[in-house]
Amino acid sequence: QLFKIACIPGDGIGVDITNAAIQVLQKLSETVGHFAFKFENLDWSSEAYKERGYYMPEDGLEYLKKFDAIYFGAVGWPDVPDHISLWGLILPIRNALNQYVNVRPTRVLRGINSPLKNCGTRDLDWVIIRENSEGEYAGHGGTTHAHSSNTVATEVSIFTRVGIERIFRFAFETAKSRPRKKLTMVTKSNAQRHGMVLWDKIFTEITKEYPDVETDKMLVDAMTVRMVLQPQSLDTIVATNLHADILSDLAAALSGSIGIAPSSNLDPTRENPSMFEPIHGSAPDIAGKGIANPIGAFWSAAEMVRWLGLEEAGEGLITCIENVTEAGMKTKDLGGSSNTKDVTDAVCKEIENV
Amino acid sequence: QLFKIACIPGDGIGVDITNAAIQVLQKLSETVGHFAFKFENLDWSSEAYKERGYYMPEDGLEYLKKFDAIYFGAVGWPDVPDHISLWGLILPIRNALNQYVNVRPTRVLRGINSPLKNCGTRDLDWVIIRENSEGEYAGHGGTTHAHSSNTVATEVSIFTRVGIERIFRFAFETAKSRPRKKLTMVTKSNAQRHGMVLWDKIFTEITKEYPDVETDKMLVDAMTVRMVLQPQSLDTIVATNLHADILSDLAAALSGSIGIAPSSNLDPTRENPSMFEPIHGSAPDIAGKGIANPIGAFWSAAEMVRWLGLEEAGEGLITCIENVTEAGMKTKDLGGSSNTKDVTDAVCKEIENV
Ligand SMILES: CC(C)[C@H](C(=O)O)[C@@H](O)C(=O)O
Ligand SMILES: CC(C)[C@H](C(=O)O)[C@@H](O)C(=O)O
Repeated sequence: QLFKIACIPGDGIGVDITNAAIQVLQKLSETVGHFAFKFENLDWSSEAYKERGYYMPEDGLEYLKKFDAIYFGAVGWPDVPDHISLWGLILPIRNALNQYVNVRPTRVLRGINSPLKNCGTRDLDWVIIRENSEGEYAGHGGTTHAHSSNTVATEVSIFTRVGIERIFRFAFETAKSRPRKKLTMVTKSNAQRHGMVLWDKIFTEITKEYPDVETDKMLVDAMTVRMVLQPQSLDTIVATNLHADILSDLAAALSGSIGIAPSSNLDPTRENPSMFEPIHGSAPDIAGKGIANPIGAFWSAAEMVRWLGLEEAGEGLITCIENVTEAGMKTKDLGGSSNTKDVTDAVCKEIENV
Repeated sequence: QLFKIACIPGDGIGVDITNAAIQVLQKLSETVGHFAFKFENLDWSSEAYKERGYYMPEDGLEYLKKFDAIYFGAVGWPDVPDHISLWGLILPIRNALNQYVNVRPTRVLRGINSPLKNCGTRDLDWVIIRENSEGEYAGHGGTTHAHSSNTVATEVSIFTRVGIERIFRFAFETAKSRPRKKLTMVTKSNAQRHGMVLWDKIFTEITKEYPDVETDKMLVDAMTVRMVLQPQSLDTIVATNLHADILSDLAAALSGSIGIAPSSNLDPTRENPSMFEPIHGSAPDIAGKGIANPIGAFWSAAEMVRWLGLEEAGEGLITCIENVTEAGMKTKDLGGSSNTKDVTDAVCKEIENV
């Protein structure tokens, strides 16, 4: 089986970790044997933008559709305003390819220390399901009286019944597939009376379809408290685009480092390719130094492998990653002194023993 | 000097901790001597709402204006939808009395353990300045096609130049008054291109007025990571209504418990009374049991005392609180076994020795 993968390394450490992920994926396919990847590299980056004035060519989104999956490094660079780089690259891809679900698993891997006192391996084991197509990232809003002392700017969050129902169904299915079968739904419906109240209402409806899933509701502010003080009490979490963006970064930090965590942008209809990316970003301060933590990139690659139907190979890769963290081979963000290449080589070596 | 204080105990543990705070404030004025409080109790609660159909009477907001300050317990009760209780009570007060600044100091008090491994007393010492009058809490938005499968709901965040400038000026003044003189500004301007970009722009302008304050900028998601992993690196923080709501709950958790943290809703023009409230909420699960942590309530009371111009008495009260936490007298949320009365009595006793 041959899978065509579009690789968009993007900016900064996105390049380092995409290279590392490709190396690991090659090794995995060679070792397991019954599948192979054909990678195509797309130079859609801030550097390219500065030269030619655009991130992706006009037919870029169309072009991506011919791939089986997309592997994404990171986008963002200090001399391009972030809202330009993101709306020029990552956000249009998520939208155009109907990747309405963003899945962000986090757990304290073997060998990694949580910054929390009372949180050992697996005490924190969450999957955050992020709504990825609407809400606070709908792109609506504007500015009036921009050049007067009277400027008014708006950000408009859009929530639709269709959008909410589908993300809840995905979240319930995820919860159902996990041993604890618990789903926590997050809103801020006490202060935001329209979209958030619609979330509450539709959640109550869909809950009835899943009697075997245990549910509860949290306000987003109180949710951060629970994540810190009772990490064991949470399992699957569903939240809006912005809330889940914030909570998933917090989750990554609580599990040891933002460098660990993967993110899958999924089109569950499978009509379009899905996109896999570590959540850490381009990290200009350490870019090009060869010291970026590739664990989040490998875990993202493993999620891609699973999504392509190679469940066993994907799980195997995650085990290899954890064997390496457990052996104490860690980059600086995790308190170690290994570099990207050390960790990559160690994971490749583990794969050979799968 | 006599200060007239409106007390709104509200719901749940709001009642317990308001009583405790009044007791402590009485003791403080008796002991120090040169000022006194006249408390007027307002039964604006969810219980009252259920009986008579409203939280505050029609002239409620007008009525509050004759006080020197407002002490607020908590609002919210399971059988009233949160968006009704909050928009019936706390949010209109913040708006009508021009309390456009919300100040949320957090630090690891003596004797209290942070849930973080690398965070001792004072390693976390932040003041979060929350925009309290617009943004995500502007109250705009609506629902269309409510009864079809096609429902669309919006939440509209409104940001104005006037609103942004004044919160930044307050934040810079706060930063300037603190030993480290550092201000971190939080947005999500990479995804939200209008209001958040206006925040960035105006921040750059106002920064020039305060050459002695060191500034930096964070995205709200990455900010949670920094709070967890590098608490020592932060000092004063300014953020939007929703972002700061989330970050301040997280801050409270990282400093040991949501039961500790105070919140001051200020009208810096002093044309209207300001309002002081602990941030913990009504906590229905422990309401009426006499075990609520009153520390957040006392700290809020101390902030009120300071705002009334009694700087020394306010600081003194904070010292008394910390002497009590240091002595190990703690409620359950902090890992202790004291109840509300124990802690209140201990703080009163400390005050006698001021
Ligand atoms: C880069 C940015 C637009 C993005 C987001 O907010 O979605 C990132 O923070 C993430 O979480 O994937
Ligand atoms: C009760 C609620 C409206 C409130 C808020 O979100 O402002 C609370 O969470 C707070 O932080 O004061």
